[in-house]
Formats: sequence, structure tokens, C-alpha cells
Amino acid sequence: MSEFFSARYAGLIPYTPGEQPKDMKYIKLNTNESPFPPSPAVERAVAAESGRLQLYSDPENRTLRERLARRFSVSPEEVVVTNGSDEVLNFAFMAFADESRPLRFPDITYGFYPVFANLHGIPYTEVPLREDFSIAPEDYTGVRETVVIANPNAPTGLSLSLVEIERIVASNPENVVIVDEAYVDFGAESAIPLTKKYKNLLVTGTFSKSRSMAGARLGFGIGNKALIADLNTLRYSTNPYNVNRMTEMAGVAALEEDEYYMSNCRTIVENREWTTKRLQELGFSVLSSRANFVFAACPRIGGKELYLSLKERGVLVRHFDKDRIREYNRITVGTREQMEVLIRNIEEILKERSL
Amino acid sequence: MSEFFSARYAGLIPYTPGEQPKDMKYIKLNTNESPFPPSPAVERAVAAESGRLQLYSDPENRTLRERLARRFSVSPEEVVVTNGSDEVLNFAFMAFADESRPLRFPDITYGFYPVFANLHGIPYTEVPLREDFSIAPEDYTGVRETVVIANPNAPTGLSLSLVEIERIVASNPENVVIVDEAYVDFGAESAIPLTKKYKNLLVTGTFSKSRSMAGARLGFGIGNKALIADLNTLRYSTNPYNVNRMTEMAGVAALEEDEYYMSNCRTIVENREWTTKRLQELGFSVLSSRANFVFAACPRIGGKELYLSLKERGVLVRHFDKDRIREYNRITVGTREQMEVLIRNIEEILKERSL
Repeated sequence: MSEFFSARYAGLIPYTPGEQPKDMKYIKLNTNESPFPPSPAVERAVAAESGRLQLYSDPENRTLRERLARRFSVSPEEVVVTNGSDEVLNFAFMAFADESRPLRFPDITYGFYPVFANLHGIPYTEVPLREDFSIAPEDYTGVRETVVIANPNAPTGLSLSLVEIERIVASNPENVVIVDEAYVDFGAESAIPLTKKYKNLLVTGTFSKSRSMAGARLGFGIGNKALIADLNTLRYSTNPYNVNRMTEMAGVAALEEDEYYMSNCRTIVENREWTTKRLQELGFSVLSSRANFVFAACPRIGGKELYLSLKERGVLVRHFDKDRIREYNRITVGTREQMEVLIRNIEEILKERSL
Repeated sequence: MSEFFSARYAGLIPYTPGEQPKDMKYIKLNTNESPFPPSPAVERAVAAESGRLQLYSDPENRTLRERLARRFSVSPEEVVVTNGSDEVLNFAFMAFADESRPLRFPDITYGFYPVFANLHGIPYTEVPLREDFSIAPEDYTGVRETVVIANPNAPTGLSLSLVEIERIVASNPENVVIVDEAYVDFGAESAIPLTKKYKNLLVTGTFSKSRSMAGARLGFGIGNKALIADLNTLRYSTNPYNVNRMTEMAGVAALEEDEYYMSNCRTIVENREWTTKRLQELGFSVLSSRANFVFAACPRIGGKELYLSLKERGVLVRHFDKDRIREYNRITVGTREQMEVLIRNIEEILKERSL
């Protein structure tokens, strides 16, 4: 820290992204990326755009917002696009929470929520998940606080039903409920249709997971026009050209090939079920995931030890050194071949230990 | 504004980007873009990267930071890269200014500075430029405030010498001086070498202007390691994957073809001098620009009227409806052909008026 750093941020503990080691080639199951490349149409769209980079992108992102609106049966004025969904979450925390509207989210969830809250000096309550790691909807009904729920939740993979989400939204009419649907395409129900009915619901999404575009950075928010206008006030006060030309066109192309991506999602769900079954056969406790990862613990080996042993063998998973979940690892679901390598390595690690 | 919008931001007036009308094809001389496309190597680099978009970008941007460090003879720890230079400016305002370190910048300068200051509730003083629109360095020496200077300044195009910049930096050892060098490659002296000597100097730059990458969004900051670490604390608390894969590789490729871009800059400087001369012959008062635009007023026609007449004829320039500069227009310097069309249209507009 320099002597010039503002006291406002002096105690800030930043988010820690998943490691990206460069010492060797790993099977990367640690940051919930898709194992499938973008569709060829995305590559063509990017190549076509790369010759026009001297011109600013459209600050209104009209083309992409129109396509997103069509895809989700809303109007373009109900859509904002951002540099990854972290950016729309950041804007939403700024816009809809402050001293008079504190935040409420689970104690075990996406690690960026407390970081954003601390960054902006917003008070927040971390509500403990139930013993089984599920979210208790009643903890969030009628709370008069700004609620943030990842659905499915991370790193647990567990989801709430649309009925439960609606109960939370309907019971907090004076506060915004932010539903972070980064992983929704792998088996949860989207709350986007509810944005027509509730003016206090903001749904956020990303092209990073189901649409194979983590490296392109494209997120979006969908909600009532007035909520989106507020987010745009912040976007135009921060970075009006936040989504670059290549990413905008990649997003448009990806939406045109929806079937390719939804078919990849089905494959990942199959691989998830296969992996869950194999891990259970090896004695793991595996949560019932609706996302593109599984969250699993093994009574025969500590969470950190398994993470380190797998890393040594070239398989990266994500371990969180945090109370309640220290014995678990979050394992991204990749291709069947990758999952077979994972299982084979776990078998070998467990065998070595029992010798 | 929704009923949920935080009172913190209720009065915020966002930045207004230059218009991007879609009703007809314009000669765009209104947002200071380069008229030249990126080099073919940039297109190739983007195409190669587009097949890997399923993977997150490197949150440390090691490859690009190493190349930038080499280009500017600093170390990678003295470099941060961002989603356009607006993002590094936003982080710098957050990091190095607050109630105890108010901001000081000219009354006529990049319109985003007061927006950032208001966004973060940072007090600021707008110091009037001299009558001739130049910055008086003595207004910024020994002020015990965080100083922000665009060099060259926009929309005037006027620049300070390195000696004047150094005097400002040296006389404010307790505050950071931010020098925004978005337009430096068109004829001003960069203060980057001074970052070795002064730990309170942050220089920001962009690939949007001289490097034909406005649509790719790539900015950077160079300064003492501790300053850069502070900016990274905010970056990791906001959006650690802020620079996408395609933009990172486009930036690397652009730095490898420095000669192409520096040659384009020389062409733009020639066109600027040609345009300045022709405007002066038509009776315009034209400031002595060191940037890729000219700032010009004509006693024979009002600033807004000229802007509107040119727009009607398919030539877009930028008019700021603001005290002191209402009679001026900021005209981006494009190709010689574009500037000839501009001059021809101005001649015709002036002729029509005198009939």
C-alpha cells in the first residue's frame, strides 16, 4: 500500500480469482469454464470485427441488447450489458444498497459479494446456510434489506425453485432482490419471466459459463426499465464503452447458435451426473448440483490434501480455506475424458493413502 | 430513476459520449478515433485468440504488462492494464483522492473528471484555464491536492512541457499527480520516464487513439510499484478479469508493430497542420494542437451553427455547449481526404451564409 492510498479503501481485502498457474499444463477444473470452445460463428464474428477496432463500440450496445431482449422475451430497455457479470453486480450493489438498504446474502456464496459490499462501505448480513448447505427462503422473506441470491448458489451448486424465488421477491417490495444466474443454464429455473411482474427484481447473467465466453467478458442484467436506467446512470459515470466491439459481436453470434450451447449444457449435465455417481461410489458426499461443478467432500481425505494431491498430478480443482466448507472441493464439470482422468487420479490418491 | 436508487448517486450527471448516430453514414470527426485500421498483425492475433474464449483471461495480464514495460522502459510491476483508460482513471480517482485529498483539474478538460469525482463524492476545484486556453502550471504547484492534468489537454489540444509537468509533480510530494496522456503520441512529451524519480506520479495512456484500438478498450497506468499495487487492490475488488483475451492479444500485437502506428501518427500530424492552415485561411482561430484533433472557432459563424450545418452535410464534429468554449468545435484529424471534405463543406457553409 502506498502512502497515498485513500483511507476509504485501506482495509479492503480484494477477491481472489482461481489460480492460473503457468508452470505446467493442467486439466483446469477450478474456475467453472466450459470445456467446449465457442461456436465457429463466434470466431467468424470476432474476425470480421477485428478490422474495425479503430472505432469506438456503440455505448448503447443496441444490436446485442436487441438480441438478448428477443432471446429472453423482454424489451431492449430492460437489458444492460457489462464487462462480465461482475460489473453488473458491482453496479447493482452501488445502485440498490447503502446504509439505509443494507445487503443480505448467504454466508457461503460467491466470494465477490462481501468484496463489493466492503468496497462501497455497504453494511451486510451473511446468513448461514442450513446444515445441508441449502438456502432457507424464509431467511430472506420480508427482510427490508437488499437481497442477493446466486441461483444456483456457488460453490454448493444447490438451487431454489422459482416459487421460492418469487416468494422472496414478492415479500420485499421496498428493496431490490438481485438473482445472480451465472449457472442457471445447467439445470435451474430462470427468474427472468418474473421481471415483468416485479419491479424490484434484477436478474444477472453471464456468457462465461454455458456460452463458452469467459475470456470475452460479457455479462448482462435484466429487470424493470427503471432499474436498468439506474444501472446505466452508473455505467455512463464509470465506463460508457464497457463492452468492446469484439465481445459485442461474439455475444450476438453466440445467441444465434443457441442450440450448440444448450446441447453443450446437456452434455455437461450428463457428465455431472456421471461424476457425482463415481464420486459417491468412492465414498464422497456430493451435493445435488444444478451447476457446471460439483461440491464434494471425502471422509477418507481432507479437502485441502485432496486439492494439493490433485494439483501435483496436474488436475486443478478449487479449494476454499473457509469454515464449514474446508473439507470440500469445488470441481468444474468438463468433458467426459477430463472427468475420467479426475476420477482415476482420485482413485490412485485414495489407494496410496490406504497402503 | 427507480424508487430503489441509492441517495448516494441520486444527483449524478453521467458522462455524455460523442454521438454515434445510425441514421446515415457520416464522416466521423467527433470522437478522436484514428482513421487508420489496426495493423494486420492485430487482426491475426485476435483471430487466433477467438478459439480460446471459453477460458478466462489472465487476471495478471502478464504477457501484455511485460510488453508494455519493455516498450516504456519500466518494470511489469509498474504497469496496470484496464478496460480503456477511463477505468484506470476511475481507479486512480478512487485510490488517491477523498475528503482529505481533494482533486484539482482545469475547468476545461476531459469531461469525465468531474463525473468520476461526483460518483465517488470527492471534493474538487476546477481551475480556470488562462484566457488563451493554456494551463498555468503555477495553479498546480504546491497545492496539497490530488492533481489531474490531461497532457495534451482536451478539447484544447494544448500541451505542457515536461519541465512544467515535473515542477507540478515535484512540488506536491504529499499528493499524487495523475497525467492523462491519451493524446501524447501526436506531439507532446511523455512523463513516463519521470515515474522512476517521483513516487507520486501516475501516467495513464490508451490504445484508443494512436494505436487504432478504441473499439477494443485498452488503457494502462504507469507509476511507482506501490501506486500500481493500490490500483490493483481496487481492480481485484471490482473486476479482476477486466481486460479480455482478445484485447490483451491485440495490445501485444500492436506493440510489436510500433512503427506502423508511429508512422500513422506522423501522417495525422501532417494532416493536422494542413487543416489548421486551411481553417486559418478561412478566418478561424485555431489553437496550436499537439493532439489528433483541432479546436477551432470562426467569427463568421457560431460554434453550434457550424456543428449543425456540418452534421446536415454528413460531417460530424464535437460541439460542447459550455461557457467559454461555445463558439468552438473540436474536430478530429482524419485522413487527408476526410479533411478536404471537411474544408470544402465549411467553405460552402460560409459562402451560403454570406449570400
